[in-house]
Amino acid sequence: MLKAIQILGSSSSGFVSFSYRLKRKPQSNCDLYFLSRKPIKASNLSSLGSKAPSFAFRFRKGRASIASQMSHIHSESNPYGASSSSSTSTSVQSTGSIRKINFCQSCGGRTKHEIPDGEEKMRAICTGCGKITYENPKMVVGCLIEYENKILLCKRKIQPSFGLWTLPAGYMEIGESAAEGAIRETWEEANAEVEVLSPFAHLDIPLIGQTYIIFLAKLKRPHFSPGPESSECQLFALNDIPFDSLAFSSMLVTLQLYIEDRKVGRPMFHYGIINKRPGTSPSEIHAYTLDHHLKS
Amino acid sequence: MLKAIQILGSSSSGFVSFSYRLKRKPQSNCDLYFLSRKPIKASNLSSLGSKAPSFAFRFRKGRASIASQMSHIHSESNPYGASSSSSTSTSVQSTGSIRKINFCQSCGGRTKHEIPDGEEKMRAICTGCGKITYENPKMVVGCLIEYENKILLCKRKIQPSFGLWTLPAGYMEIGESAAEGAIRETWEEANAEVEVLSPFAHLDIPLIGQTYIIFLAKLKRPHFSPGPESSECQLFALNDIPFDSLAFSSMLVTLQLYIEDRKVGRPMFHYGIINKRPGTSPSEIHAYTLDHHLKS
Repeated sequence: MLKAIQILGSSSSGFVSFSYRLKRKPQSNCDLYFLSRKPIKASNLSSLGSKAPSFAFRFRKGRASIASQMSHIHSESNPYGASSSSSTSTSVQSTGSIRKINFCQSCGGRTKHEIPDGEEKMRAICTGCGKITYENPKMVVGCLIEYENKILLCKRKIQPSFGLWTLPAGYMEIGESAAEGAIRETWEEANAEVEVLSPFAHLDIPLIGQTYIIFLAKLKRPHFSPGPESSECQLFALNDIPFDSLAFSSMLVTLQLYIEDRKVGRPMFHYGIINKRPGTSPSEIHAYTLDHHLKS
Repeated sequence: MLKAIQILGSSSSGFVSFSYRLKRKPQSNCDLYFLSRKPIKASNLSSLGSKAPSFAFRFRKGRASIASQMSHIHSESNPYGASSSSSTSTSVQSTGSIRKINFCQSCGGRTKHEIPDGEEKMRAICTGCGKITYENPKMVVGCLIEYENKILLCKRKIQPSFGLWTLPAGYMEIGESAAEGAIRETWEEANAEVEVLSPFAHLDIPLIGQTYIIFLAKLKRPHFSPGPESSECQLFALNDIPFDSLAFSSMLVTLQLYIEDRKVGRPMFHYGIINKRPGTSPSEIHAYTLDHHLKS
Protein backbone atom coordinates (compact mmCIF):
# COMPACT_ATOMS: atom_id res chain seq x y z
CA MET A 1 0.00 0.00 0.00
CA LEU A 2 1.06 3.56 -0.66
CA LYS A 3 2.40 5.35 2.35
CA ALA A 4 1.10 8.66 1.06
CA ILE A 5 -2.47 7.70 1.70
CA GLN A 6 -1.80 6.63 5.23
CA ILE A 7 -0.79 9.94 6.67
CA LEU A 8 -3.50 12.24 5.41
CA GLY A 9 -4.53 14.67 8.09
CA SER A 10 -7.64 16.63 8.76
CA SER A 11 -9.87 17.90 6.02
CA SER A 12 -12.26 20.75 5.92
CA SER A 13 -14.60 19.08 3.48
CA GLY A 14 -17.71 17.21 4.38
CA PHE A 15 -18.89 15.75 7.65
CA VAL A 16 -19.23 19.05 9.37
CA SER A 17 -22.06 18.70 11.78
CA PHE A 18 -22.67 15.49 13.60
CA SER A 19 -25.05 16.54 16.29
CA TYR A 20 -25.43 13.13 17.79
CA ARG A 21 -23.04 10.37 18.62
CA LEU A 22 -22.18 7.62 16.22
CA LYS A 23 -23.76 4.77 18.06
CA ARG A 24 -23.35 1.06 17.77
CA LYS A 25 -26.42 -0.74 16.65
CA PRO A 26 -27.39 -2.42 19.89
CA GLN A 27 -28.34 -5.83 18.61
CA SER A 28 -26.40 -6.56 15.53
CA ASN A 29 -23.07 -4.84 15.69
CA CYS A 30 -24.09 -2.37 13.04
CA ASP A 31 -23.02 1.22 12.83
CA LEU A 32 -23.81 2.03 9.25
CA TYR A 33 -22.26 5.32 8.64
CA PHE A 34 -24.25 7.94 6.85
CA LEU A 35 -25.89 10.57 8.99
CA SER A 36 -28.88 11.96 7.19
CA ARG A 37 -30.39 14.75 9.19
CA LYS A 38 -32.36 16.42 6.46
CA PRO A 39 -34.55 15.22 3.61
CA ILE A 40 -32.48 13.98 0.72
CA LYS A 41 -33.23 14.97 -2.83
CA ALA A 42 -32.97 12.56 -5.70
CA SER A 43 -30.54 14.83 -7.45
CA ASN A 44 -28.39 12.56 -9.49
CA LEU A 45 -29.71 9.15 -10.20
CA SER A 46 -27.70 9.09 -13.39
CA SER A 47 -24.47 8.69 -11.45
CA LEU A 48 -24.93 4.99 -11.26
CA GLY A 49 -23.52 2.37 -13.47
CA SER A 50 -22.21 4.67 -16.14
CA LYS A 51 -18.56 4.63 -15.19
CA ALA A 52 -16.02 2.54 -16.94
CA PRO A 53 -13.49 0.84 -14.71
CA SER A 54 -11.43 3.66 -13.29
CA PHE A 55 -8.45 2.02 -11.73
CA ALA A 56 -5.31 3.99 -12.16
CA PHE A 57 -2.61 2.03 -10.47
CA ARG A 58 0.96 3.12 -10.30
CA PHE A 59 3.75 0.77 -9.49
CA ARG A 60 6.70 2.10 -7.59
CA LYS A 61 9.17 0.80 -5.10
CA GLY A 62 8.10 -2.66 -6.05
CA ARG A 63 4.56 -2.26 -4.79
CA ALA A 64 1.24 -1.42 -6.31
CA SER A 65 -0.13 1.91 -5.28
CA ILE A 66 -3.56 3.31 -5.70
CA ALA A 67 -2.65 6.93 -5.51
CA SER A 68 -4.68 8.50 -8.23
CA GLN A 69 -7.91 6.84 -7.33
CA MET A 70 -7.49 7.20 -3.62
CA SER A 71 -6.25 10.77 -3.57
CA HIS A 72 -9.64 12.32 -3.91
CA ILE A 73 -11.37 9.69 -1.86
CA HIS A 74 -9.29 10.53 1.15
CA SER A 75 -10.05 14.18 0.95
CA GLU A 76 -13.35 13.07 2.41
CA SER A 77 -13.82 12.44 6.06
CA ASN A 78 -14.10 8.94 7.36
CA PRO A 79 -16.79 8.28 9.90
CA TYR A 80 -14.70 5.43 11.21
CA GLY A 81 -12.07 7.99 12.04
CA ALA A 82 -14.54 9.91 14.14
CA SER A 83 -14.46 9.05 17.77
CA SER A 84 -17.65 7.49 18.98
CA SER A 85 -17.47 9.76 21.99
CA SER A 86 -17.17 12.92 19.96
CA SER A 87 -20.11 14.90 18.75
CA THR A 88 -18.30 16.44 15.80
CA SER A 89 -15.66 15.26 13.40
CA THR A 90 -13.86 16.68 10.45
CA SER A 91 -10.84 14.44 10.75
CA VAL A 92 -9.60 11.94 8.21
CA GLN A 93 -7.92 8.67 9.06
CA SER A 94 -7.49 6.76 5.89
CA THR A 95 -5.95 3.78 7.65
CA GLY A 96 -9.14 3.22 9.54
CA SER A 97 -9.05 4.08 13.20
CA ILE A 98 -5.46 3.05 13.80
CA ARG A 99 -4.78 6.23 15.79
CA LYS A 100 -7.52 5.25 18.19
CA ILE A 101 -5.65 2.10 19.12
CA ASN A 102 -3.78 3.32 22.17
CA PHE A 103 -3.32 0.07 24.03
CA CYS A 104 -2.58 -3.57 23.23
CA GLN A 105 -5.59 -5.87 23.60
CA SER A 106 -3.37 -8.72 24.72
CA CYS A 107 -1.07 -7.25 27.36
CA GLY A 108 -2.44 -3.75 27.94
CA GLY A 109 0.83 -2.10 26.90
CA ARG A 110 0.91 1.29 25.21
CA THR A 111 1.03 1.24 21.42
CA LYS A 112 3.15 3.26 19.04
CA HIS A 113 2.04 4.03 15.50
CA GLU A 114 4.71 3.15 12.98
CA ILE A 115 5.29 1.27 9.77
CA PRO A 116 6.71 -2.10 10.87
CA ASP A 117 9.81 -3.51 9.24
CA GLY A 118 8.92 -5.25 6.03
CA GLU A 119 5.52 -3.58 5.78
CA GLU A 120 4.31 -0.47 4.04
CA LYS A 121 1.37 0.63 6.11
CA MET A 122 1.18 2.28 9.49
CA ARG A 123 0.13 -0.06 12.28
CA ALA A 124 -0.42 0.10 15.99
CA ILE A 125 2.50 -1.77 17.57
CA CYS A 126 2.60 -2.68 21.25
CA THR A 127 5.62 -1.16 22.99
CA GLY A 128 5.39 -3.95 25.55
CA CYS A 129 4.93 -7.28 23.78
CA GLY A 130 5.53 -6.06 20.22
CA LYS A 131 2.20 -7.32 18.92
CA ILE A 132 0.97 -5.59 15.79
CA THR A 133 -2.74 -4.82 15.59
CA TYR A 134 -4.22 -5.17 12.11
CA GLU A 135 -7.45 -3.63 10.98
CA ASN A 136 -9.52 -4.94 8.14
CA PRO A 137 -12.65 -3.81 6.31
CA LYS A 138 -15.98 -4.99 7.67
CA MET A 139 -18.72 -6.75 5.77
CA VAL A 140 -22.31 -5.55 5.95
CA VAL A 141 -24.69 -8.26 4.79
CA GLY A 142 -28.32 -7.91 3.81
CA CYS A 143 -31.24 -9.10 1.73
CA LEU A 144 -33.16 -7.69 -1.19
CA ILE A 145 -36.53 -9.38 -0.92
CA GLU A 146 -39.09 -9.18 -3.68
CA TYR A 147 -42.64 -10.26 -2.90
CA GLU A 148 -45.47 -9.84 -5.37
CA ASN A 149 -43.36 -7.45 -7.45
CA LYS A 150 -42.58 -5.30 -4.44
CA ILE A 151 -39.41 -4.78 -2.39
CA LEU A 152 -39.30 -5.01 1.39
CA LEU A 153 -37.76 -1.95 3.06
CA CYS A 154 -37.35 -1.03 6.72
CA LYS A 155 -37.58 2.46 8.16
CA ARG A 156 -34.76 2.92 10.64
CA LYS A 157 -35.70 3.58 14.27
CA ILE A 158 -32.06 4.07 15.25
CA GLN A 159 -29.22 6.34 14.27
CA PRO A 160 -27.57 6.81 11.92
CA SER A 161 -30.18 7.64 9.30
CA PHE A 162 -33.08 7.57 11.72
CA GLY A 163 -36.37 7.64 9.83
CA LEU A 164 -34.87 6.69 6.46
CA TRP A 165 -35.45 3.53 4.48
CA THR A 166 -33.04 0.65 4.01
CA LEU A 167 -32.87 -2.96 3.00
CA PRO A 168 -32.49 -5.15 6.08
CA ALA A 169 -28.73 -5.38 6.65
CA GLY A 170 -26.05 -5.28 9.30
CA TYR A 171 -22.55 -6.36 10.18
CA MET A 172 -21.58 -9.95 9.52
CA GLU A 173 -20.54 -11.66 12.72
CA ILE A 174 -17.67 -14.00 13.46
CA GLY A 175 -18.86 -17.61 13.15
CA GLU A 176 -21.50 -17.07 10.49
CA SER A 177 -21.47 -16.92 6.72
CA ALA A 178 -22.58 -13.91 4.72
CA ALA A 179 -25.83 -15.65 3.79
CA GLU A 180 -26.49 -16.61 7.40
CA GLY A 181 -25.79 -13.06 8.48
CA ALA A 182 -28.14 -11.64 5.87
CA ILE A 183 -30.90 -14.01 6.98
CA ARG A 184 -30.27 -13.14 10.63
CA GLU A 185 -30.36 -9.40 9.98
CA THR A 186 -33.60 -9.73 8.04
CA TRP A 187 -35.13 -11.58 10.94
CA GLU A 188 -33.88 -9.02 13.44
CA GLU A 189 -34.97 -5.95 11.50
CA ALA A 190 -38.15 -7.15 9.80
CA ASN A 191 -39.19 -10.33 11.65
CA ALA A 192 -39.16 -11.95 8.24
CA GLU A 193 -38.05 -15.50 7.56
CA VAL A 194 -36.30 -15.59 4.22
CA GLU A 195 -34.53 -18.00 1.93
CA VAL A 196 -31.46 -16.69 0.16
CA LEU A 197 -31.75 -17.20 -3.59
CA SER A 198 -28.57 -15.80 -5.09
CA PRO A 199 -25.79 -13.31 -4.47
CA PHE A 200 -26.67 -9.97 -6.02
CA ALA A 201 -24.12 -7.30 -5.16
CA HIS A 202 -20.69 -6.77 -3.64
CA LEU A 203 -20.17 -3.04 -3.09
CA ASP A 204 -16.97 -1.74 -1.52
CA ILE A 205 -16.85 1.64 0.20
CA PRO A 206 -13.10 2.03 0.79
CA LEU A 207 -13.49 5.42 2.43
CA ILE A 208 -15.16 3.89 5.45
CA GLY A 209 -13.77 0.38 5.30
CA GLN A 210 -17.07 -1.29 4.55
CA THR A 211 -18.12 -3.91 2.03
CA TYR A 212 -21.80 -4.53 1.37
CA ILE A 213 -22.82 -8.06 0.40
CA ILE A 214 -26.45 -8.17 -0.70
CA PHE A 215 -28.39 -11.34 -1.52
CA LEU A 216 -31.63 -11.76 -3.37
CA ALA A 217 -34.03 -13.55 -1.06
CA LYS A 218 -37.65 -14.59 -0.83
CA LEU A 219 -40.07 -14.68 2.06
CA LYS A 220 -40.67 -18.17 3.40
CA ARG A 221 -44.08 -16.99 4.53
CA PRO A 222 -45.84 -13.71 3.84
CA HIS A 223 -45.19 -12.14 7.18
CA PHE A 224 -43.04 -9.27 8.31
CA SER A 225 -43.20 -6.62 11.00
CA PRO A 226 -40.81 -4.06 12.45
CA GLY A 227 -38.03 -5.41 14.63
CA PRO A 228 -36.56 -3.39 17.50
CA GLU A 229 -34.50 -1.22 15.15
CA SER A 230 -37.27 -0.48 12.66
CA SER A 231 -40.30 1.75 12.99
CA GLU A 232 -41.96 0.39 9.84
CA CYS A 233 -41.50 -2.39 7.33
CA GLN A 234 -43.21 -1.93 4.02
CA LEU A 235 -43.35 -3.42 0.54
CA PHE A 236 -42.71 -0.93 -2.25
CA ALA A 237 -43.48 -1.38 -5.91
CA LEU A 238 -40.38 -0.84 -8.02
CA ASN A 239 -41.80 2.46 -9.24
CA ASP A 240 -42.48 3.62 -5.71
CA ILE A 241 -39.11 3.03 -4.07
CA PRO A 242 -38.54 6.08 -1.84
CA PHE A 243 -35.29 7.18 -3.49
CA ASP A 244 -35.60 10.56 -1.81
CA SER A 245 -35.46 9.07 1.64
CA LEU A 246 -33.10 6.12 1.52
CA ALA A 247 -30.62 5.71 4.34
CA PHE A 248 -27.38 4.88 2.54
CA SER A 249 -25.65 5.16 -0.83
CA SER A 250 -25.13 1.41 -0.78
CA MET A 251 -28.88 0.85 -0.70
CA LEU A 252 -29.45 3.39 -3.44
CA VAL A 253 -26.93 1.63 -5.68
CA THR A 254 -28.31 -1.81 -4.89
CA LEU A 255 -31.90 -0.84 -5.62
CA GLN A 256 -31.03 0.96 -8.83
CA LEU A 257 -28.97 -1.96 -10.11
CA TYR A 258 -31.83 -4.28 -9.33
CA ILE A 259 -34.38 -2.13 -11.11
CA GLU A 260 -32.10 -1.84 -14.12
CA ASP A 261 -31.61 -5.59 -14.20
CA ARG A 262 -35.31 -6.23 -13.92
CA LYS A 263 -35.96 -3.99 -16.91
CA VAL A 264 -33.79 -6.10 -19.16
CA GLY A 265 -34.18 -9.59 -17.72
CA ARG A 266 -33.01 -11.54 -14.75
CA PRO A 267 -30.84 -10.00 -12.03
CA MET A 268 -27.10 -10.41 -12.46
CA PHE A 269 -24.28 -10.26 -9.92
CA HIS A 270 -22.68 -6.84 -9.54
CA TYR A 271 -19.33 -5.77 -8.17
CA GLY A 272 -18.56 -2.10 -7.68
CA ILE A 273 -16.76 0.53 -5.64
CA ILE A 274 -18.78 3.39 -4.18
CA ASN A 275 -16.64 6.50 -4.00
CA LYS A 276 -17.99 9.71 -2.57
CA ARG A 277 -17.66 12.77 -4.75
CA PRO A 278 -14.99 15.20 -3.53
CA GLY A 279 -16.32 17.91 -1.29
CA THR A 280 -19.63 16.27 -0.56
CA SER A 281 -21.05 15.26 2.78
CA PRO A 282 -21.73 11.64 3.67
CA SER A 283 -25.35 12.62 4.19
CA GLU A 284 -25.60 13.36 0.48
CA ILE A 285 -26.20 9.78 -0.48
CA HIS A 286 -26.55 10.59 -4.16
CA ALA A 287 -23.11 12.21 -4.31
CA TYR A 288 -21.09 9.18 -5.31
CA THR A 289 -19.62 7.46 -8.29
CA LEU A 290 -19.92 3.74 -8.83
CA ASP A 291 -16.48 2.78 -10.07
CA HIS A 292 -15.10 -0.43 -11.47
CA HIS A 293 -18.60 -1.76 -11.96
CA LEU A 294 -18.36 -5.37 -13.10
CA LYS A 295 -21.13 -7.87 -13.76
CA SER A 296 -21.27 -11.64 -13.76
CA MET B 1 -26.91 -15.11 17.24
CA LEU B 2 -27.32 -18.26 19.26
CA LYS B 3 -25.70 -18.16 22.61
CA ALA B 4 -25.08 -21.89 22.51
CA ILE B 5 -22.41 -21.58 19.89
CA GLN B 6 -20.54 -18.94 21.80
CA ILE B 7 -19.55 -20.97 24.77
CA LEU B 8 -18.17 -24.09 23.19
CA GLY B 9 -15.05 -25.21 24.93
CA SER B 10 -12.11 -27.32 23.95
CA SER B 11 -12.31 -30.10 21.45
CA SER B 12 -10.23 -33.14 20.98
CA SER B 13 -10.73 -33.29 17.26
CA GLY B 14 -8.38 -31.93 14.69
CA PHE B 15 -5.64 -29.36 14.95
CA VAL B 16 -3.50 -31.40 17.26
CA SER B 17 0.04 -30.57 16.40
CA PHE B 18 1.05 -27.09 15.49
CA SER B 19 4.78 -27.26 15.72
CA TYR B 20 5.38 -23.72 14.63
CA ARG B 21 3.80 -20.44 15.46
CA LEU B 22 0.98 -19.00 13.44
CA LYS B 23 2.78 -16.07 11.96
CA ARG B 24 1.52 -12.92 10.37
CA LYS B 25 2.37 -12.56 6.75
CA PRO B 26 4.98 -9.86 6.97
CA GLN B 27 3.96 -7.71 4.06
CA SER B 28 0.32 -8.05 3.49
CA ASN B 29 -1.42 -8.73 6.75
CA CYS B 30 -2.13 -12.29 5.75
CA ASP B 31 -2.24 -15.22 8.09
CA LEU B 32 -4.06 -17.76 6.00
CA TYR B 33 -4.82 -20.52 8.31
CA PHE B 34 -4.18 -24.02 7.17
CA LEU B 35 -1.02 -25.65 8.39
CA SER B 36 0.04 -28.30 5.92
CA ARG B 37 3.05 -30.11 7.22
CA LYS B 38 2.79 -33.22 5.13
CA PRO B 39 2.00 -33.95 1.50
CA ILE B 40 -1.71 -33.82 0.83
CA LYS B 41 -3.52 -36.45 -1.16
CA ALA B 42 -6.25 -35.68 -3.61
CA SER B 43 -8.65 -37.90 -1.77
CA ASN B 44 -12.06 -36.47 -2.36
CA LEU B 45 -12.47 -34.12 -5.26
CA SER B 46 -16.09 -35.12 -5.49
CA SER B 47 -16.93 -33.23 -2.34
CA LEU B 48 -17.35 -30.04 -4.26
CA GLY B 49 -20.50 -28.55 -5.54
CA SER B 50 -22.71 -31.49 -4.90
CA LYS B 51 -24.49 -30.21 -1.84
CA ALA B 52 -27.87 -28.67 -1.94
CA PRO B 53 -28.32 -25.59 0.21
CA SER B 54 -28.09 -26.90 3.74
CA PHE B 55 -29.29 -24.09 5.92
CA ALA B 56 -31.29 -25.32 8.81
CA PHE B 57 -32.26 -22.26 10.75
CA ARG B 58 -34.25 -22.37 13.88
CA PHE B 59 -36.07 -19.41 15.22
CA ARG B 60 -36.40 -19.04 18.92
CA LYS B 61 -36.53 -16.24 21.42
CA GLY B 62 -37.25 -13.90 18.58
CA ARG B 63 -33.91 -14.42 16.86
CA ALA B 64 -32.62 -16.55 14.07
CA SER B 65 -30.24 -19.21 15.20
CA ILE B 66 -27.93 -21.34 13.19
CA ALA B 67 -27.63 -24.15 15.59
CA SER B 68 -27.95 -27.19 13.44
CA GLN B 69 -25.51 -26.12 10.81
CA MET B 70 -23.03 -24.63 13.21
CA SER B 71 -23.06 -27.40 15.78
CA HIS B 72 -20.75 -29.67 13.86
CA ILE B 73 -18.69 -26.82 12.51
CA HIS B 74 -17.76 -25.73 15.96
CA SER B 75 -16.66 -29.14 17.01
CA GLU B 76 -13.63 -28.27 14.94
CA SER B 77 -10.84 -26.19 16.27
CA ASN B 78 -10.47 -22.63 15.16
CA PRO B 79 -7.01 -21.44 14.29
CA TYR B 80 -8.10 -17.93 15.15
CA GLY B 81 -8.71 -19.17 18.65
CA ALA B 82 -5.15 -20.41 18.89
CA SER B 83 -2.81 -17.99 20.52
CA SER B 84 -0.12 -16.78 18.21
CA SER B 85 2.35 -17.36 21.01
CA SER B 86 1.32 -20.93 21.61
CA SER B 87 2.87 -23.87 19.86
CA THR B 88 -0.14 -26.12 20.23
CA SER B 89 -3.87 -25.61 20.21
CA THR B 90 -6.89 -27.78 20.52
CA SER B 91 -9.15 -25.06 21.82
CA VAL B 92 -12.30 -23.78 20.20
CA GLN B 93 -13.45 -20.20 20.29
CA SER B 94 -16.43 -19.90 18.06
CA THR B 95 -16.81 -16.20 18.71
CA GLY B 96 -13.44 -15.56 17.17
CA SER B 97 -10.69 -14.62 19.56
CA ILE B 98 -12.85 -12.69 21.96
CA ARG B 99 -11.22 -14.37 24.94
CA LYS B 100 -7.87 -13.02 23.83
CA ILE B 101 -9.11 -9.46 24.19
CA ASN B 102 -7.91 -8.72 27.70
CA PHE B 103 -7.59 -4.95 27.54
CA CYS B 104 -9.42 -2.02 25.96
CA GLN B 105 -7.64 -0.52 22.97
CA SER B 106 -8.93 2.94 23.84
CA CYS B 107 -8.26 3.36 27.55
CA GLY B 108 -6.19 0.32 28.47
CA GLY B 109 -8.75 -0.90 31.00
CA ARG B 110 -9.32 -4.58 31.75
CA THR B 111 -12.10 -6.24 29.79
CA LYS B 112 -14.78 -8.62 30.97
CA HIS B 113 -16.40 -11.14 28.65
CA GLU B 114 -20.17 -10.96 28.83
CA ILE B 115 -23.24 -10.68 26.69
CA PRO B 116 -24.14 -6.97 26.75
CA ASP B 117 -27.68 -5.84 27.46
CA GLY B 118 -29.74 -6.00 24.31
CA GLU B 119 -27.30 -8.27 22.52
CA GLU B 120 -27.07 -12.02 22.16
CA LYS B 121 -23.40 -12.64 21.65
CA MET B 122 -20.51 -12.56 24.06
CA ARG B 123 -18.30 -9.49 23.71
CA ALA B 124 -15.25 -8.05 25.37
CA ILE B 125 -16.48 -5.09 27.43
CA CYS B 126 -14.11 -2.60 29.04
CA THR B 127 -14.54 -2.47 32.81
CA GLY B 128 -13.16 1.07 32.72
CA CYS B 129 -14.83 3.02 29.95
CA GLY B 130 -17.50 0.47 29.04
CA LYS B 131 -16.48 0.25 25.39
CA ILE B 132 -17.54 -2.93 23.64
CA THR B 133 -15.04 -4.48 21.24
CA TYR B 134 -16.61 -6.09 18.19
CA GLU B 135 -14.94 -8.64 15.98
CA ASN B 136 -15.87 -9.26 12.39
CA PRO B 137 -14.83 -11.75 9.72
CA LYS B 138 -11.91 -10.81 7.51
CA MET B 139 -11.82 -10.75 3.75
CA VAL B 140 -9.05 -12.47 1.81
CA VAL B 141 -8.87 -11.16 -1.74
CA GLY B 142 -7.06 -12.71 -4.69
CA CYS B 143 -6.87 -13.25 -8.43
CA LEU B 144 -7.39 -16.21 -10.70
CA ILE B 145 -5.30 -15.36 -13.75
CA GLU B 146 -5.52 -17.34 -16.94
CA TYR B 147 -2.85 -16.80 -19.55
CA GLU B 148 -2.62 -18.91 -22.69
CA ASN B 149 -5.00 -21.46 -21.19
CA LYS B 150 -2.91 -21.78 -18.05
CA ILE B 151 -3.45 -20.61 -14.47
CA LEU B 152 -0.86 -18.66 -12.49
CA LEU B 153 -0.04 -20.20 -9.12
CA CYS B 154 2.49 -19.22 -6.46
CA LYS B 155 4.42 -21.63 -4.27
CA ARG B 156 4.42 -20.29 -0.72
CA LYS B 157 7.76 -19.42 0.82
CA ILE B 158 6.15 -18.61 4.18
CA GLN B 159 4.04 -20.39 6.73
CA PRO B 160 1.35 -21.53 6.88
CA SER B 161 1.38 -24.00 4.01
CA PHE B 162 5.05 -23.45 3.18
CA GLY B 163 5.91 -25.08 -0.14
CA LEU B 164 2.31 -25.49 -1.28
CA TRP B 165 0.59 -23.78 -4.20
CA THR B 166 -1.95 -21.01 -4.05
CA LEU B 167 -3.56 -18.32 -6.11
CA PRO B 168 -2.09 -14.93 -5.22
CA ALA B 169 -4.23 -13.67 -2.33
CA GLY B 170 -4.10 -11.98 1.04
CA TYR B 171 -6.03 -9.88 3.50
CA MET B 172 -7.93 -6.89 2.22
CA GLU B 173 -6.69 -3.71 3.87
CA ILE B 174 -8.59 -0.74 5.24
CA GLY B 175 -8.77 1.97 2.56
CA GLU B 176 -8.80 -0.29 -0.47
CA SER B 177 -11.48 -2.12 -2.39
CA ALA B 178 -11.54 -5.88 -2.87
CA ALA B 179 -10.41 -5.48 -6.47
CA GLU B 180 -7.58 -3.15 -5.47
CA GLY B 181 -6.53 -5.57 -2.77
CA ALA B 182 -6.54 -8.51 -5.18
CA ILE B 183 -4.40 -6.53 -7.65
CA ARG B 184 -2.01 -5.49 -4.88
CA GLU B 185 -1.63 -9.02 -3.57
CA THR B 186 -0.93 -10.32 -7.06
CA TRP B 187 1.77 -7.73 -7.47
CA GLU B 188 3.27 -8.53 -4.09
CA GLU B 189 3.26 -12.29 -4.49
CA ALA B 190 3.90 -12.72 -8.20
CA ASN B 191 5.24 -9.35 -9.44
CA ALA B 192 2.44 -9.51 -11.94
CA GLU B 193 0.45 -6.51 -13.14
CA VAL B 194 -3.11 -7.58 -13.70
CA GLU B 195 -6.44 -6.18 -14.73
CA VAL B 196 -9.47 -7.46 -12.89
CA LEU B 197 -12.07 -8.81 -15.32
CA SER B 198 -14.95 -10.01 -13.18
CA PRO B 199 -15.84 -11.29 -9.73
CA PHE B 200 -15.65 -15.07 -9.66
CA ALA B 201 -16.15 -16.44 -6.15
CA HIS B 202 -17.24 -15.47 -2.66
CA LEU B 203 -16.40 -18.31 -0.28
CA ASP B 204 -17.12 -18.03 3.43
CA ILE B 205 -15.25 -20.13 5.97
CA PRO B 206 -17.24 -19.40 9.14
CA LEU B 207 -15.09 -21.65 11.29
CA ILE B 208 -12.14 -19.31 10.99
CA GLY B 209 -13.92 -16.05 10.30
CA GLN B 210 -12.62 -15.66 6.77
CA THR B 211 -14.28 -14.79 3.49
CA TYR B 212 -12.43 -15.34 0.22
CA ILE B 213 -13.21 -12.96 -2.62
CA ILE B 214 -11.61 -14.14 -5.87
CA PHE B 215 -11.58 -12.20 -9.13
CA LEU B 216 -10.83 -13.37 -12.62
CA ALA B 217 -7.96 -11.28 -13.94
CA LYS B 218 -5.60 -11.06 -16.88
CA LEU B 219 -1.94 -10.16 -17.12
CA LYS B 220 -1.34 -6.66 -18.44
CA ARG B 221 2.00 -7.91 -19.75
CA PRO B 222 3.36 -11.43 -19.87
CA HIS B 223 5.67 -11.11 -16.91
CA PHE B 224 5.65 -12.61 -13.46
CA SER B 225 8.24 -13.70 -10.94
CA PRO B 226 8.23 -14.74 -7.30
CA GLY B 227 7.65 -11.96 -4.77
CA PRO B 228 9.15 -12.09 -1.27
CA GLU B 229 6.57 -14.59 -0.05
CA SER B 230 6.79 -16.97 -3.01
CA SER B 231 9.53 -19.40 -3.98
CA GLU B 232 8.09 -20.01 -7.46
CA CYS B 233 5.41 -18.67 -9.74
CA GLN B 234 4.26 -20.95 -12.49
CA LEU B 235 1.56 -21.29 -15.11
CA PHE B 236 -0.33 -24.58 -14.99
CA ALA B 237 -2.53 -26.03 -17.69
CA LEU B 238 -5.98 -26.82 -16.34
CA ASN B 239 -5.21 -30.52 -16.49
CA ASP B 240 -1.98 -30.04 -14.58
CA ILE B 241 -3.18 -28.06 -11.57
CA PRO B 242 -1.32 -29.55 -8.57
CA PHE B 243 -4.42 -30.56 -6.65
CA ASP B 244 -2.29 -32.78 -4.42
CA SER B 245 -0.24 -29.87 -3.17
CA LEU B 246 -2.53 -26.88 -2.90
CA ALA B 247 -2.24 -24.71 0.18
CA PHE B 248 -5.87 -24.12 1.16
CA SER B 249 -9.37 -25.54 0.74
CA SER B 250 -10.48 -22.17 -0.58
CA MET B 251 -8.05 -22.44 -3.47
CA LEU B 252 -9.08 -26.01 -4.16
CA VAL B 253 -12.72 -24.98 -4.35
CA THR B 254 -11.99 -21.95 -6.50
CA LEU B 255 -9.92 -23.89 -9.00
CA GLN B 256 -12.39 -26.72 -9.26
CA LEU B 257 -15.31 -24.36 -9.79
CA TYR B 258 -13.34 -22.60 -12.49
CA ILE B 259 -12.45 -25.82 -14.27
CA GLU B 260 -16.06 -26.97 -14.11
CA ASP B 261 -17.26 -23.66 -15.52
CA ARG B 262 -14.73 -23.76 -18.30
CA LYS B 263 -15.95 -27.20 -19.33
CA VAL B 264 -19.45 -25.94 -19.93
CA GLY B 265 -18.92 -22.37 -21.03
CA ARG B 266 -17.99 -19.06 -19.52
CA PRO B 267 -17.16 -18.70 -15.83
CA MET B 268 -20.05 -17.73 -13.56
CA PHE B 269 -20.06 -16.10 -10.14
CA HIS B 270 -20.14 -18.51 -7.23
CA TYR B 271 -21.16 -18.10 -3.62
CA GLY B 272 -20.54 -20.88 -1.14
CA ILE B 273 -19.71 -21.83 2.43
CA ILE B 274 -16.73 -24.06 3.07
CA ASN B 275 -17.36 -26.20 6.12
CA LYS B 276 -14.75 -28.60 7.39
CA ARG B 277 -15.86 -32.16 7.86
CA PRO B 278 -16.25 -33.13 11.53
CA GLY B 279 -13.19 -34.74 13.00
CA THR B 280 -10.80 -33.69 10.28
CA SER B 281 -7.69 -31.59 10.56
CA PRO B 282 -7.38 -28.21 8.89
CA SER B 283 -4.39 -29.56 7.01
CA GLU B 284 -6.71 -31.99 5.23
CA ILE B 285 -7.77 -29.46 2.65
CA HIS B 286 -9.99 -31.92 0.82
CA ALA B 287 -12.04 -32.66 3.94
CA TYR B 288 -14.76 -30.09 3.48
CA THR B 289 -18.23 -29.63 2.17
CA LEU B 290 -19.21 -26.73 -0.04
CA ASP B 291 -22.59 -25.74 1.33
CA HIS B 292 -25.20 -23.32 0.10
CA HIS B 293 -23.51 -23.17 -3.27
CA LEU B 294 -25.25 -20.50 -5.35
CA LYS B 295 -24.41 -19.24 -8.83
CA SER B 296 -25.13 -16.01 -10.64
